[in-house]
Amino acid sequence: MTTLNDKFTALGAENAPGQELRQDLGEVDKMMRGEKLEGNFVDFSHGDVDAFPPPSEAVQEWMRGYEMGGKQAYTQYRGSASILKKTAERLSKFTGCKIQANQELIITPGSQGALFLALGATVESGVKVAIVEPDYFANRKLVSYLGGTLVPIPLNYQDNSLKRGIDLDVLEEVFKSGTKVFVFSTPNNPTGLVYSREAINKIATLALTHDVTLIVDQLYSRLLYGGETYTHLCACKNVPKNLITIMGPSKTESLSGFRLGVAFGTSWLIERMERLQAIVSLRAAGYNQAVLNSWFQEPSGWMKKRIGEHEAIRDTLLKIFNSSGLPTATPQAGSYLFPKLPPLEVDIELFVKLLRYQAGVVVTLGSEFGPTTNQSVRLNFSQDHKSAIDAAKRIVEMVQRYKR
Amino acid sequence: MTTLNDKFTALGAENAPGQELRQDLGEVDKMMRGEKLEGNFVDFSHGDVDAFPPPSEAVQEWMRGYEMGGKQAYTQYRGSASILKKTAERLSKFTGCKIQANQELIITPGSQGALFLALGATVESGVKVAIVEPDYFANRKLVSYLGGTLVPIPLNYQDNSLKRGIDLDVLEEVFKSGTKVFVFSTPNNPTGLVYSREAINKIATLALTHDVTLIVDQLYSRLLYGGETYTHLCACKNVPKNLITIMGPSKTESLSGFRLGVAFGTSWLIERMERLQAIVSLRAAGYNQAVLNSWFQEPSGWMKKRIGEHEAIRDTLLKIFNSSGLPTATPQAGSYLFPKLPPLEVDIELFVKLLRYQAGVVVTLGSEFGPTTNQSVRLNFSQDHKSAIDAAKRIVEMVQRYKR
Repeated sequence: MTTLNDKFTALGAENAPGQELRQDLGEVDKMMRGEKLEGNFVDFSHGDVDAFPPPSEAVQEWMRGYEMGGKQAYTQYRGSASILKKTAERLSKFTGCKIQANQELIITPGSQGALFLALGATVESGVKVAIVEPDYFANRKLVSYLGGTLVPIPLNYQDNSLKRGIDLDVLEEVFKSGTKVFVFSTPNNPTGLVYSREAINKIATLALTHDVTLIVDQLYSRLLYGGETYTHLCACKNVPKNLITIMGPSKTESLSGFRLGVAFGTSWLIERMERLQAIVSLRAAGYNQAVLNSWFQEPSGWMKKRIGEHEAIRDTLLKIFNSSGLPTATPQAGSYLFPKLPPLEVDIELFVKLLRYQAGVVVTLGSEFGPTTNQSVRLNFSQDHKSAIDAAKRIVEMVQRYKR
Repeated sequence: MTTLNDKFTALGAENAPGQELRQDLGEVDKMMRGEKLEGNFVDFSHGDVDAFPPPSEAVQEWMRGYEMGGKQAYTQYRGSASILKKTAERLSKFTGCKIQANQELIITPGSQGALFLALGATVESGVKVAIVEPDYFANRKLVSYLGGTLVPIPLNYQDNSLKRGIDLDVLEEVFKSGTKVFVFSTPNNPTGLVYSREAINKIATLALTHDVTLIVDQLYSRLLYGGETYTHLCACKNVPKNLITIMGPSKTESLSGFRLGVAFGTSWLIERMERLQAIVSLRAAGYNQAVLNSWFQEPSGWMKKRIGEHEAIRDTLLKIFNSSGLPTATPQAGSYLFPKLPPLEVDIELFVKLLRYQAGVVVTLGSEFGPTTNQSVRLNFSQDHKSAIDAAKRIVEMVQRYKR
């Protein structure tokens, strides 16, 4: 029997993105090889909303929401009916799914909030949950906290892999042997792999056949690079009976400071999620909800420009890492790179601290995303172009200094 | 064994404050006795932030936060270090407790978020939790969701009661028989009763003796009426080993639309709460956190005026209800009234729907706050003065029409 103490020990947040500043650097200065590396401090643990600011319409909508007063401060728990209506229309258009605003959509405090509610609505002690490795770090933590049992599904994400993606035969096996929930992100966080049309269709069919609830995190689906195609699971022919899709404007649109996410799908699950939200945080902050009025309404060309700018950073960083012995798969969407480091003379935990102290670069440990990727680090390259490239070069220099 | 399905059935949110608009009114029009009652629609389920607007400094601080950009968008999960520092100082001054900003304080999405995190950090399957009846509705729902066992503590809140407050002998008994957590609000929601100095001291001592974790919801402690005194548990001599105090600017300060709350107390519990927040919603919305810079910094006289205006509404409504056969205790703090209705010819659930449909008045069912108060209704009288009084008169008229 897992005790609450065990659960919270497993929930360690000190290596989670953004928490680095709470770490004690200890005597890291005495471990340094060579001098400090000069350059702008770059925090790759999350995107830089100063380099890629939110569309200006967002804060205008926020002000309008604030000025609406009480009506916007106190919405129903799942969110303002009028904002749900607009958002459902725009999400329906984007995804190709038909979303009933009043029954199949909820606004949450960030897509993290949506993930918590979706898993909270489906996972209890003993429920088997299939989790991709690597995948978004909170998925595993959430399942453990809720008492579920992790069923790992390995992801082949290297460019040279013959079969990029998950092994669908493995997935079928675990669905057959009692897995009740499958949660995954596409584009995958941390690798940027986009699940193929074939994979998505097969996942949907398998879930339908074996009565598995699907929770699909599509947070980065708008930041899709040239030549790539994206398949929305909710628009498949064989939509599974129980499906929740998660999105939000925190990443590509740089609206993370508002804590806004959405989940849409099966109405009884959305109903449960609202009941849970009612005791967890009541609702996404009322005035902030109004920001969604500007979502999918960015000025003409805005998204294209944003994607192009990210693609340019991506391509340069890929060249830097791949030519320096840090193999890095090409993300098809999103702004994460997940380079693998060569064997080092120091623990990777210490190396990451040295990176911060000596080279002014924050990255996230690969072990946060699964047990099989503990020699990788994740970078969110939504940063100032030049600073990102200089910082990537410092990472390479640091690897040279510390490699075995 | 409680299943997830049982849990969510028990989490019904359709009668929760603010959710009334999702209710199907059914054929309530056919049940009406007499005509509709004219008047401004008044929603007593929550305060009216248009009648009592936030201090204007709040939105100015919000704009400053937004303009800070990335630094304010991505704070550590427990909240921005600089805002924690300021807030700790001001809360220390207000409560008389010494709060270490870096270890003993967390910013949460509303005080609801703080309650969830505090109970989530302490309650698991089988843990006995003492809950006052009546008390804030989410307390009971949270304990049930987390698998804890409710141990009811009755509250004597009527003015004519010889011993207002909880029976401390009952509390000692349940502490002796294995209760591990005691959660309660002072001022009590829904009655406005403020726990006496003697009661608070005794609760602290009992918790220390029997190693019970205390979670004290002090959300309304700033709106204290003339002649009343307030005792902060955290400033007692015998502070229990494990204590979390919850506050927030959502009510008196009308900042609910920002979803901001705080919890302070025992550092290992705050640490757990941060870990849980990391998987539930990451953090209170970054820009919104900046609003706390204006908290406890209201212009001179602002709070006094606000309290005076509420006291005037309170006194008039008390007169209306108490002189019309709806016995109502005098709240010592906060903006709730909890009148008891006489026996009616219709179910109280139907009566509350009729109130909305026929009289344009929304109130919250007393059954939300505990099983013993299902003939009462709760009103948040933080409303436009005249509208509130007119609406109270319509409630009295409706009681006349439907009473047995």
